[in-house]
Amino acid sequence: MSERIRIGIAGYGNLGRGTEAALAKNPDMTVAGVFTRRAPESVTPAFAETKVFGWGSLADHADGIDVMILCSGSKEDLPQQGPELAAMFNTVDSFDTHARIPEYHAAVDAAARAAGKTAVISTGWDPGVFSINRLFGEAILPDGETHTFWGRGLSQGHSDAVRRVPGVAGAVQYTLPVESAVDAARAGGGSELTTREKHTRECFVVLESGADEERVRDEIVNMPHYFDQYDTTVNFISAEELARDHSAMPHGGFVLRSGDSGGQHRQLIEYGLTLEDNPGFTASVLVAYARAAHRLSAAGDHGAKTVFDIAPGLLSPRSPEDLRADLL
Amino acid sequence: MSERIRIGIAGYGNLGRGTEAALAKNPDMTVAGVFTRRAPESVTPAFAETKVFGWGSLADHADGIDVMILCSGSKEDLPQQGPELAAMFNTVDSFDTHARIPEYHAAVDAAARAAGKTAVISTGWDPGVFSINRLFGEAILPDGETHTFWGRGLSQGHSDAVRRVPGVAGAVQYTLPVESAVDAARAGGGSELTTREKHTRECFVVLESGADEERVRDEIVNMPHYFDQYDTTVNFISAEELARDHSAMPHGGFVLRSGDSGGQHRQLIEYGLTLEDNPGFTASVLVAYARAAHRLSAAGDHGAKTVFDIAPGLLSPRSPEDLRADLL
Repeated sequence: MSERIRIGIAGYGNLGRGTEAALAKNPDMTVAGVFTRRAPESVTPAFAETKVFGWGSLADHADGIDVMILCSGSKEDLPQQGPELAAMFNTVDSFDTHARIPEYHAAVDAAARAAGKTAVISTGWDPGVFSINRLFGEAILPDGETHTFWGRGLSQGHSDAVRRVPGVAGAVQYTLPVESAVDAARAGGGSELTTREKHTRECFVVLESGADEERVRDEIVNMPHYFDQYDTTVNFISAEELARDHSAMPHGGFVLRSGDSGGQHRQLIEYGLTLEDNPGFTASVLVAYARAAHRLSAAGDHGAKTVFDIAPGLLSPRSPEDLRADLL
Repeated sequence: MSERIRIGIAGYGNLGRGTEAALAKNPDMTVAGVFTRRAPESVTPAFAETKVFGWGSLADHADGIDVMILCSGSKEDLPQQGPELAAMFNTVDSFDTHARIPEYHAAVDAAARAAGKTAVISTGWDPGVFSINRLFGEAILPDGETHTFWGRGLSQGHSDAVRRVPGVAGAVQYTLPVESAVDAARAGGGSELTTREKHTRECFVVLESGADEERVRDEIVNMPHYFDQYDTTVNFISAEELARDHSAMPHGGFVLRSGDSGGQHRQLIEYGLTLEDNPGFTASVLVAYARAAHRLSAAGDHGAKTVFDIAPGLLSPRSPEDLRADLL
């Protein structure tokens, strides 16, 4: 390749660091810079050659960056940053508040079109590659049922909720699919099961000195919305065990489509992810879609795009001829 | 929907029948006709309302068919029929001779472009949705290994080979993945394994009266190319058992991608199919891509296309707004 695609990283938390690491695996791309709202000198990137800039200098880099990967949170930051940055850069983001995707799409689309930019929104794994599999499943087997299961995986929001319970010194929470629900879905049933019935929750908790196990357990399992409608187990462990066994961010899950292709033939499609590091995988998907964003922009195909709008070949650095000869 | 997409079915074997059944599951499409090289009156379609025409009348239907689904074999028929029919119709086919895809693509592309038609080639499951997953796997996790496993599934070619052995009255052959190879692939290894080492072969054979079991078994397991390099088991059964237990056409398999997203994090993507009826599933994929072919043609995007060139959203009857709100 002659020119490498210049990628900016906006936000440098777990997802930003994962993006920096993923870019190192893609020789057709290069990190043009990390942009942070913290003091730039307080941020130490994983690779010494990565430049760190302040958020205020974003506009100065419009000409030096082919695609900006947005690595801020969906709840507070992206609703504002998505449209703002799509007015300056081609962008890729992982906006994952499913219920608000239509309005987010409209806002980013308007900004990107006005600026002649291409913005890939809501990619990663869910939304992202899981969404593609939900679409393929029902397009190929229209007479069938789709089930999405999550886990076994660390849930950040639920871990935070457990940590807020008085007497808890530290905690993590894992979401797990219920095996019997998975079996029912594979057999073509389970359509009546809710997300709550399809998942259990498992907590590992370090108590503060003198805290009462039974009271803490009760408060967790009865916590409204977070735990009260789930089958929840609470395991008490030491601070050493928490640090040793529960510092990683594993996740995953699977999308099942079971349907009848006609003639009473049961067909099952199953797409699964087993991830040692959730943000690292999300970042890897964002990076592949950054390549697509760059190509779509170069072709004059502007506005907001989702994974549904993007041909698979645009994700690969290889030529169409090469892909046909080698991967088809 | 106002106008249904009018689909022609060229060839009426297992795949053609599967296509007719799959179309009945898609209310936005209708069967415009089945085209056969046999005498039309000798063909009885699954649905009484399906019209059957002779192969010679294909050209007369150019105006009444939006997309022709080619249901003939890859070996003898498609190399000729693919370009021929793409000069008259938008087409979809399942050409699966992997090594000859580049030349087939070139021939169909030239014919389709000259005629202003859109031709989706080599879709189904492998090539097809498996190919998409091979591409996604390496695009998302460039530092990794891809493995494709087939089975447990009925192999038509190998079943035919067994039936040609003297003394064999009837037979089927199943291909199975080797569990230890699958485990190695999931763990990120197995890159040294060949297709032969990753699969075993299992035969169910009905002997002719008086045939010698040991001689037949020897001939099968030592048959060059087909069996000699595989671990093959031969089970002798009765004609009744063959008819009762081995008349279906199950197949499936999976595509694994195991890779490091950066920072020594092992990530595993697994796409699997468990199919009760192989041609029925292939047909279901062809039908979904027929919808895409119709849309691409209407948009003036002509020539030969593969699954790599087609955005997922084009497969679904639902609007982009609906897909974003409901499936993303």
